[in-house]
Amino acid sequence: MRAFVTGCAGFIGSNLTDRLLRAGHAVVGYDDFSTGRLEFLSDAGRNASFTLVRGDLLDMPTLINAMQGADVVFHIAANADVRFGTHHPRKDLEQNTLVTSNVLEAMRVNRIHRIAFASTGSVYGESSVIPTPEDSPFPIQTSLYGASKLACEGLIEAYCEGFEIYGYIFRFVSILGERYTHGHIVDFYRQLRESPGRLCVLGNGKQKKSYLHVQDCIDAMLLALEKANRKVNIFNLGTDEYCTVDDSIGWICQHLGVNPKLEYAGGDRGWIGDNPFILLDCRRIRSLGWTSKMTIKNSVENTLQYLQQSEPAQSK
Amino acid sequence: MRAFVTGCAGFIGSNLTDRLLRAGHAVVGYDDFSTGRLEFLSDAGRNASFTLVRGDLLDMPTLINAMQGADVVFHIAANADVRFGTHHPRKDLEQNTLVTSNVLEAMRVNRIHRIAFASTGSVYGESSVIPTPEDSPFPIQTSLYGASKLACEGLIEAYCEGFEIYGYIFRFVSILGERYTHGHIVDFYRQLRESPGRLCVLGNGKQKKSYLHVQDCIDAMLLALEKANRKVNIFNLGTDEYCTVDDSIGWICQHLGVNPKLEYAGGDRGWIGDNPFILLDCRRIRSLGWTSKMTIKNSVENTLQYLQQSEPAQSK
Repeated sequence: MRAFVTGCAGFIGSNLTDRLLRAGHAVVGYDDFSTGRLEFLSDAGRNASFTLVRGDLLDMPTLINAMQGADVVFHIAANADVRFGTHHPRKDLEQNTLVTSNVLEAMRVNRIHRIAFASTGSVYGESSVIPTPEDSPFPIQTSLYGASKLACEGLIEAYCEGFEIYGYIFRFVSILGERYTHGHIVDFYRQLRESPGRLCVLGNGKQKKSYLHVQDCIDAMLLALEKANRKVNIFNLGTDEYCTVDDSIGWICQHLGVNPKLEYAGGDRGWIGDNPFILLDCRRIRSLGWTSKMTIKNSVENTLQYLQQSEPAQSK
Repeated sequence: MRAFVTGCAGFIGSNLTDRLLRAGHAVVGYDDFSTGRLEFLSDAGRNASFTLVRGDLLDMPTLINAMQGADVVFHIAANADVRFGTHHPRKDLEQNTLVTSNVLEAMRVNRIHRIAFASTGSVYGESSVIPTPEDSPFPIQTSLYGASKLACEGLIEAYCEGFEIYGYIFRFVSILGERYTHGHIVDFYRQLRESPGRLCVLGNGKQKKSYLHVQDCIDAMLLALEKANRKVNIFNLGTDEYCTVDDSIGWICQHLGVNPKLEYAGGDRGWIGDNPFILLDCRRIRSLGWTSKMTIKNSVENTLQYLQQSEPAQSK
């Protein structure tokens, strides 16, 4: 298989690239390095089956050219910053919706017929059904990030119908693991590294969140591509468990051996558009034979180990 | 009320403008006349409460300036051409999704807090639930038009959450009535005007379609704005009945006094992304006290009367 991976230097994209290369596939990776990191590609860079293209997904000629000859596109690049959507209302539209339109157009021009897309459980907004299945009631968006990913899903589905493309849409919970670079675990880690005696927490600590380890996530994506063959294949990816923000704080403090004073900002949401309870119904992906290997606690601890190695206290 | 109406020179926009003016409201109408017609504003143009701005919705400075001082925005402008989406895959994205983002940004800048949006039953794709309610299962898009309108809905909802805007989203069936300018009734009318002995029909004639008269549609929108007050208010707008394409052909032939040979293209869909059965569950808007005054047959006949007056056979 010749895979094209957008966002190949990012957290999920680089882990996916490594996995594809290890499985013997050729990979063309595309990244603009706006948030991606070259060091995440240090293994890939030593592999003769890997080609890196530095490019902007808004630059159509470069994108079309780079994608030539691919069998499948993994569209992982995104503005994944859910929390600050209202600070820059156009960013999600441009970096997610418009970019996905470009990826689909480049596929159409290059006659590539399979796309795997990193969507999000945020497309459910605040679902009335928890755990939330893929066919839960028509969602109402609560964030510009979720709205942009919903728009991407719709575009992919319309291209599947109109241009004989097979779409694999994965609605992720928050992903943890090696190369995790943003989100509340890294925020807490950095706060505690700077000031072990004090931790500022958005919301009241009672928000219920779901997490999945990046390797479990990639297992699920690759399995779905192998086993599912509808025109449009949509899968929730998460674990059957959730934790509260307070649970994760407990694990982090235990792991780091600190006992900070907790300062809650208050309210049942961490920010505008935050969802106080995320739990996805993942029976559909399980029915293909997938199961997560890591618990949420394992994933948090593995992420902390990675952060301690990559961002040690003395380096700052 | 000071209303801002996008697409004010179009079919629905001009009828809405006339109704708002008749009800004593001030209207600023915005249109680029790409498909709008100046003659549709002949009544409005004589009303001192009407201001016309010729402008492109992609031109932000002009849009922001024109919208100043409005209490409510009726965003009716759109690329409403469902059938030819795959011929120009960017058009729906640009004319619907990007334009709606601009309208919302202009509202944010101008601190305008109410938007009524002309969406479509096409956002349901091919729903597994018929009649289709507003909270039917998470839809899968089948057209670039539907995908673009779904993206608009998501953007509006996210702005409602993030910027204290009240959103009124109306999912229309196909609308008929005076100033109707495109769609299958006008296609059939024009074909029969040119060649009364022959009618080419896309699909097999068995597709089940829903229609609503433009005045019933406007009644419902204005009632919802008056009576519904949630942050996000979503309403299907349609009738409880449907007709087959063959039914509408029968009414048209009877009205025109012709008996053409019918030539079916075949298949259960008229084009890629066509939905073979559209019927919306409209109990939510009915619960506010609205009911349609026109049957589908009445609406078709009224539309034909309009077409006969505005596009008489001898004029071509």
